Amino acid sequence: MSDETTPTVHDVPVGIEATGTRTETDSMGAIEVPADRYWGAQTARSLVHFAIGEDRMPVAVCRAFGYVKKAAAIANGRGGRLPQWKADLIARVCDEIIAGDLDDHFPLYVWQTGSGTQSNMNVNEVISNRCIQLLGGELGSKKPVHPNDDVNMCQSSNDTFPTAMHIATLLQLRTQLLPSLQRLHASFDAKAHEWSDVIKTGRTHLQDAVPLTVGQEWSGYAAQLAQAIERLQQSSEGLYEVALGGTAVGTGINAPQGFAEEVADELARMTGEPIVTAANKFAAQGGLDAMVGASAGIRALAVPIMKISNDIRWLASGPRCGIGELILPENEPGSSIMPGKVNPTQCEATVMVCIQVIADDLGTTFAGSQGNFELNAMRPIIINNVLHSALILGDACDLLREHCIDGIELDRPQIQEYLDRSLMLVTALSPVIGYDQASHIAHTASEQGLTLREAALASGAISGEDFDRVVDPAAMIHPG
Amino acid sequence: MSDETTPTVHDVPVGIEATGTRTETDSMGAIEVPADRYWGAQTARSLVHFAIGEDRMPVAVCRAFGYVKKAAAIANGRGGRLPQWKADLIARVCDEIIAGDLDDHFPLYVWQTGSGTQSNMNVNEVISNRCIQLLGGELGSKKPVHPNDDVNMCQSSNDTFPTAMHIATLLQLRTQLLPSLQRLHASFDAKAHEWSDVIKTGRTHLQDAVPLTVGQEWSGYAAQLAQAIERLQQSSEGLYEVALGGTAVGTGINAPQGFAEEVADELARMTGEPIVTAANKFAAQGGLDAMVGASAGIRALAVPIMKISNDIRWLASGPRCGIGELILPENEPGSSIMPGKVNPTQCEATVMVCIQVIADDLGTTFAGSQGNFELNAMRPIIINNVLHSALILGDACDLLREHCIDGIELDRPQIQEYLDRSLMLVTALSPVIGYDQASHIAHTASEQGLTLREAALASGAISGEDFDRVVDPAAMIHPG
Amino acid sequence: MSDETTPTVHDVPVGIEATGTRTETDSMGAIEVPADRYWGAQTARSLVHFAIGEDRMPVAVCRAFGYVKKAAAIANGRGGRLPQWKADLIARVCDEIIAGDLDDHFPLYVWQTGSGTQSNMNVNEVISNRCIQLLGGELGSKKPVHPNDDVNMCQSSNDTFPTAMHIATLLQLRTQLLPSLQRLHASFDAKAHEWSDVIKTGRTHLQDAVPLTVGQEWSGYAAQLAQAIERLQQSSEGLYEVALGGTAVGTGINAPQGFAEEVADELARMTGEPIVTAANKFAAQGGLDAMVGASAGIRALAVPIMKISNDIRWLASGPRCGIGELILPENEPGSSIMPGKVNPTQCEATVMVCIQVIADDLGTTFAGSQGNFELNAMRPIIINNVLHSALILGDACDLLREHCIDGIELDRPQIQEYLDRSLMLVTALSPVIGYDQASHIAHTASEQGLTLREAALASGAISGEDFDRVVDPAAMIHPG
Amino acid sequence: MSDETTPTVHDVPVGIEATGTRTETDSMGAIEVPADRYWGAQTARSLVHFAIGEDRMPVAVCRAFGYVKKAAAIANGRGGRLPQWKADLIARVCDEIIAGDLDDHFPLYVWQTGSGTQSNMNVNEVISNRCIQLLGGELGSKKPVHPNDDVNMCQSSNDTFPTAMHIATLLQLRTQLLPSLQRLHASFDAKAHEWSDVIKTGRTHLQDAVPLTVGQEWSGYAAQLAQAIERLQQSSEGLYEVALGGTAVGTGINAPQGFAEEVADELARMTGEPIVTAANKFAAQGGLDAMVGASAGIRALAVPIMKISNDIRWLASGPRCGIGELILPENEPGSSIMPGKVNPTQCEATVMVCIQVIADDLGTTFAGSQGNFELNAMRPIIINNVLHSALILGDACDLLREHCIDGIELDRPQIQEYLDRSLMLVTALSPVIGYDQASHIAHTASEQGLTLREAALASGAISGEDFDRVVDPAAMIHPG
Repeated sequence: MSDETTPTVHDVPVGIEATGTRTETDSMGAIEVPADRYWGAQTARSLVHFAIGEDRMPVAVCRAFGYVKKAAAIANGRGGRLPQWKADLIARVCDEIIAGDLDDHFPLYVWQTGSGTQSNMNVNEVISNRCIQLLGGELGSKKPVHPNDDVNMCQSSNDTFPTAMHIATLLQLRTQLLPSLQRLHASFDAKAHEWSDVIKTGRTHLQDAVPLTVGQEWSGYAAQLAQAIERLQQSSEGLYEVALGGTAVGTGINAPQGFAEEVADELARMTGEPIVTAANKFAAQGGLDAMVGASAGIRALAVPIMKISNDIRWLASGPRCGIGELILPENEPGSSIMPGKVNPTQCEATVMVCIQVIADDLGTTFAGSQGNFELNAMRPIIINNVLHSALILGDACDLLREHCIDGIELDRPQIQEYLDRSLMLVTALSPVIGYDQASHIAHTASEQGLTLREAALASGAISGEDFDRVVDPAAMIHPG
Repeated sequence: MSDETTPTVHDVPVGIEATGTRTETDSMGAIEVPADRYWGAQTARSLVHFAIGEDRMPVAVCRAFGYVKKAAAIANGRGGRLPQWKADLIARVCDEIIAGDLDDHFPLYVWQTGSGTQSNMNVNEVISNRCIQLLGGELGSKKPVHPNDDVNMCQSSNDTFPTAMHIATLLQLRTQLLPSLQRLHASFDAKAHEWSDVIKTGRTHLQDAVPLTVGQEWSGYAAQLAQAIERLQQSSEGLYEVALGGTAVGTGINAPQGFAEEVADELARMTGEPIVTAANKFAAQGGLDAMVGASAGIRALAVPIMKISNDIRWLASGPRCGIGELILPENEPGSSIMPGKVNPTQCEATVMVCIQVIADDLGTTFAGSQGNFELNAMRPIIINNVLHSALILGDACDLLREHCIDGIELDRPQIQEYLDRSLMLVTALSPVIGYDQASHIAHTASEQGLTLREAALASGAISGEDFDRVVDPAAMIHPG
Repeated sequence: MSDETTPTVHDVPVGIEATGTRTETDSMGAIEVPADRYWGAQTARSLVHFAIGEDRMPVAVCRAFGYVKKAAAIANGRGGRLPQWKADLIARVCDEIIAGDLDDHFPLYVWQTGSGTQSNMNVNEVISNRCIQLLGGELGSKKPVHPNDDVNMCQSSNDTFPTAMHIATLLQLRTQLLPSLQRLHASFDAKAHEWSDVIKTGRTHLQDAVPLTVGQEWSGYAAQLAQAIERLQQSSEGLYEVALGGTAVGTGINAPQGFAEEVADELARMTGEPIVTAANKFAAQGGLDAMVGASAGIRALAVPIMKISNDIRWLASGPRCGIGELILPENEPGSSIMPGKVNPTQCEATVMVCIQVIADDLGTTFAGSQGNFELNAMRPIIINNVLHSALILGDACDLLREHCIDGIELDRPQIQEYLDRSLMLVTALSPVIGYDQASHIAHTASEQGLTLREAALASGAISGEDFDRVVDPAAMIHPG
Repeated sequence: MSDETTPTVHDVPVGIEATGTRTETDSMGAIEVPADRYWGAQTARSLVHFAIGEDRMPVAVCRAFGYVKKAAAIANGRGGRLPQWKADLIARVCDEIIAGDLDDHFPLYVWQTGSGTQSNMNVNEVISNRCIQLLGGELGSKKPVHPNDDVNMCQSSNDTFPTAMHIATLLQLRTQLLPSLQRLHASFDAKAHEWSDVIKTGRTHLQDAVPLTVGQEWSGYAAQLAQAIERLQQSSEGLYEVALGGTAVGTGINAPQGFAEEVADELARMTGEPIVTAANKFAAQGGLDAMVGASAGIRALAVPIMKISNDIRWLASGPRCGIGELILPENEPGSSIMPGKVNPTQCEATVMVCIQVIADDLGTTFAGSQGNFELNAMRPIIINNVLHSALILGDACDLLREHCIDGIELDRPQIQEYLDRSLMLVTALSPVIGYDQASHIAHTASEQGLTLREAALASGAISGEDFDRVVDPAAMIHPG
């Protein structure tokens, strides 16, 4: 089959009807692969050498490679470096990858070569063999679509893998994490409005403090979330710059002039993200700083979400021996031994997820610092940790919202009782009678078990009338 | 079916021949479960509420629960709290769990209730239904073997789950991580002996230093590993103390006197580990310090293994523009764009694994600090991280050994050339002519591109004869 | 002394001419303080209760409090809540604080109350007593300038302390860290231009790769730094929002309408930073997310700076048994035992600083997650870690630049020799003769110790003429 | 002055009566030092090159060097390598260092050369000049006691610095951290006994659970602490092995046979610690694993202490709107705006310290992984972090105990009220009426606001008599 004549493409569905194994080759020689899989020799070797644990390269990376390979094929076809039929065929298979139809053909482990070369070759091999199948050729022959010379044309793992990392992350954020966060934010916001008129005791240092409304408290949650969402968006902007076109060490060897810009444009068009070619490819391939930045953005969400989840489980503590201001939905029996126990399990799961996000981020940061010369060879751990964090945080937020936040109710009598009891309403007296006298009154009330009003009047510092006017919780929830 | 009469146990193989769903119930009401699964209502609820990411409770935990439930059943049978036939039946099903035959019936996610109650109930439900099946009863009826009253008798998630954590970890260390580490140590040790007579240039601060033998260098690797193995063993001794018998809050409510000791003895007998009942159950359930300790032990290995892996890839750097003292096995093509490139991929994968172990350990430590009152409700993240770290580190060590260490060869000419060139042999002159003069000679040699001998003789500080006697690398590799 | 009449302000220089102790009081009673210090009872108590280690509240925080207290005094004077003379006097003392004249009067430890109340009161007490001194009054009398009623008017530790944190961080970044980074960037940039025509061997996976210029490599360093600087600036934008005006729990109790906006304007005017009042005070006081964000920004610099420092020390490794492409300035004797040894010490110190920045950032992040309800009571650790990181990173960058980067020279013969030797120039053959044949040539050259040209010609795949045309390093350093 | 004749030693007190500067020299040339300081040229250079932040090499390291240098001098005198008078003189000055008399002469920064060479030379220079002073010689002349040839004889920074690290850590643990921890443990233990008969509601998942005694709860704290102390002791055993004698790269070059063992014996004798020479010097100098291990041991304390501190502040939350079971000492006014507020400040400070210990430990671990070849050049960060953690944790524990734990009182009525209210006493019914029915009763009581007894009787599942017999808190605090 020559490159000059356009061969016939057969409409073969994805899948290989074969059993046993097939021989594939690379520069190290021959190796058997499962006959019903598209991958080739380098994938097979990696499965032997890197069967470490159960962590597999996230399929999101492989799908993102679909965009990368397609963009390159389009540019190579347009530039006449690939015959048009071959470029079209590669692009067609890339569409299958993007659609997830070839997910089962990307079996590699996370813990592999630090450049991600084996995953790049896995993609190259799968595309090569799938193309060959569509042309009715011989699987493993590398003809007429060669994994390196054709599919990887003008590319290196060193520029394709970080590009796929950026794309996979951007898509995960856009399609999964950010929408989940925005839904959670909307729920907090709705609660903040719903409860805007319920005055409650504030707490600082875990100790009773001056009042605020439940709505104000929850507006704080909503605001923390909104700010963190914005921080994540900002932190992930560095992902728009992609290394593709830098090839082996950032110089663009074996790629033509303009290739980098052209493929970046294609990627932007295909993904809908404002992707551009990295201004400096040596930075983009020697470091993975944009990924570390995105990780910091995800972590920026874990921090407030952990705080908020903890607040909620504390405010719901009880039911009779805790704070008990909130009533959480009862989703499941809480204890295998204590009948009728209900626990804040969604909050607990969320807290654990937040801790894991912080731990994953450490792995990412540490790995980000370990590059050498023209390559940071710690890519797989970084993409795995970032996508893992995004995934579990997004899912946790959705389930926290559905099974907890949206169903929370207030125990209004309990809230009112605390408000009535609190000594910290004394704070309003401070501008009137001075801090020192107000402090004295609070201490007296506490020690003698008096109400604040009783202690205040006993002190002689203020009249009952003045007390009632000044010590009004409703007046304390905003500036004077 | 009454408890008094011993029912007939049918020899039904594991598996339920049914399709569609089955109704199961708990105190929250009814819920459908897949008809071919043994689990019950609480497992089903957890699958709905906690579908967070793809992290599943490690099967090692569920199998470890097999030991816990069996030990309790034996003690409850012996104490007459369970009829003997029921205790025997539960124990039989536990053996199936331990053997892995019921692995497919433990589908829960890691990110669930912080106590692990849902996994405990998953186990209770599976045992209950499997027992019922063996008796020819109705699945989901909880009769005559009730998940709480019978399988969970004298137990709580609060004591069973941490016990299962300890057992799962101990077994993982004994059967997987430690043997892998010992094999790696043996490989380093063998290399240290093999290369005990090859003198090479030492390097400190990455700069040329005085000589040592390759064997000495590798004896250091072996020693670091041996010490870390010992540290891990010591660090995991705290796991021998188990909470079982503490039940809900550590007091042992609903368990009889002596139960804790009895089940610990059973666990020791069954597992072959020197398990004892925790001296203080409040500490054992309110904290997870023994797990944090074990995590530190695993981390203690990641630290030197990372250093050693880095050393090896640096010493093998090149082949022509690096240090190039070591020749690593060529396992796979290294680059998708640079033909013939060979990379230290096993080392890279190992380094990433070490970083992840350190990150996992942070998650464990952070979670370990977040307990409250009678429970640390961060158990799932801790057991998942510890088992994950052990697994990937063990696998990485095995593959590093097989595909890298055992096949490493020395580039002896290169090693000799460096030795001949090094200026730091000047150090041996120091006791003879003083530090200051020796320093002057080294600087002169460096600046003027002389050999050390040339510069020494030019300095007039030493004769050629004396120089040759004193500056003898073979005399520098041990105390004088 | 009544508030109505304007008292005479005496021009007393800073300092108290007294020895021994003075009695100060607060609501807990009386306590002795050193007679020559301005602080009062609460500072004295804190010194007793929190003498933990040697970490002191960074003076930058106390100086930042000068701005906070001054802004509040101005607003309170303008609003008639303070007599104008008192507002002016407080503002005057604040200027002394800002100028550093009162640094010796802020002795508190970092590890104190989590709200920073004690440092807020330290400032209030110092201002009160200094004002009293300027008026010729009695130190400790709290008259006519009371630490709470006057200096702390309309304020709480809960809003002033985080405001001071933000200001201290912004000023540290602007005056110390950012300029240092920009100077370092300029040095890298200059080297990138200086060495733009020196072709060298690239290295990926520590292994020889295709060529690039030294200038390109260093342009990567400059670009990583430039991007990280931008990331830091972006990450610290959250600091512009200040809590001041939220008072005790974010509601603004005891502060008038408009106070928050007014003091933010004053702070902006005084500091030259675009400070605004926080849109949501509950978020600003319950969380410290803007600080965690800024910390991530500093960490974003540590990651590439660590990579670059490592690159430099590896490229300078040798002098005769390492890579040896760079020659670092010799600043000091490197070894106490090996005469004439020179080590890359500035790089080592910088690497350690980068690691510490990452560790500090973990402390900040962890603490940032531990807020409860209306307060994150982990403020001192956060401000201490952030300022510490900024300080050591800034200083390290300056010294790295001065004593290392600016004096680095190339070993051009060594660089050329590597380039001549490298087999990876074979990559340029790949588009001509195919990846597989090119790979075969590289392997043959490596195994048989041939030059690439020899092996290529021996393969019969290419003529000598074509080889010389294609395998031209100068053509490999940019797209084709 | 010749080595053969014993010179006269003058009894000059520590201190140099001089102003201005003095010229000192090293192999880089001359440099000025302050005339009233003993240090020499290399110290002076380090002060110029490494003025990074404010972190200084902990004086504990310099004092530990006193032991190292003394041990070496004794061995060198005994072996005839140093004239006895010189060995004695060096030893005498070392005693001054150990006693702290020369603390002011060790000014170096933490962030310096990674081997600690500059601190080693600082010590060598100070000893040299102090000896010279005692002999009436010329400061800076290096005669007759040379910093390298005499004071550093048979040593290298590479073996002395890690030896000093181990000794400094061991002494810090023995004299400061461990006693503080033991005192804290004793306080917890005393409280556990004092409150052994007070029954309270347990809490798991922050939710009401079955009862235990306050004494049991506190026995858990005591046990966690006791176990962690043991873990620290075990974790720090690796410090007993010292590198001294390995000299430059672990081979012992320039040291005589037996030197390593001899100096280790001296160190053991002098310090009272069971110090031995490291079995493998390459491991001891290429890695710092024993320090990472000790760090893990300190962290092992931070984890439970953080949990316990949090428990205490939560149990003391209120006074009227929280849990309020504990009454903490009122040490200081808690708020600058809320009069009469009392906060759990000792707990907060302790929690922050625990977080910092975990952060410091990360720095140590990260640095521990970054060794290369014959040296881990990350020593200063490691020793600084470990000593810092030990110091702040020890101090925090002492102050927590003094100002909080020892003064805590119970609010017994509050504790009783919770106990009376709790629905989880239902657990005792479970073995009698089954989990499902007990669960139903608890839910009914909760939903209808009934007492447990009311709901139980209404269910018809149990008689009042049986209820009162079974539901007895005093019977629930131990196994049946």
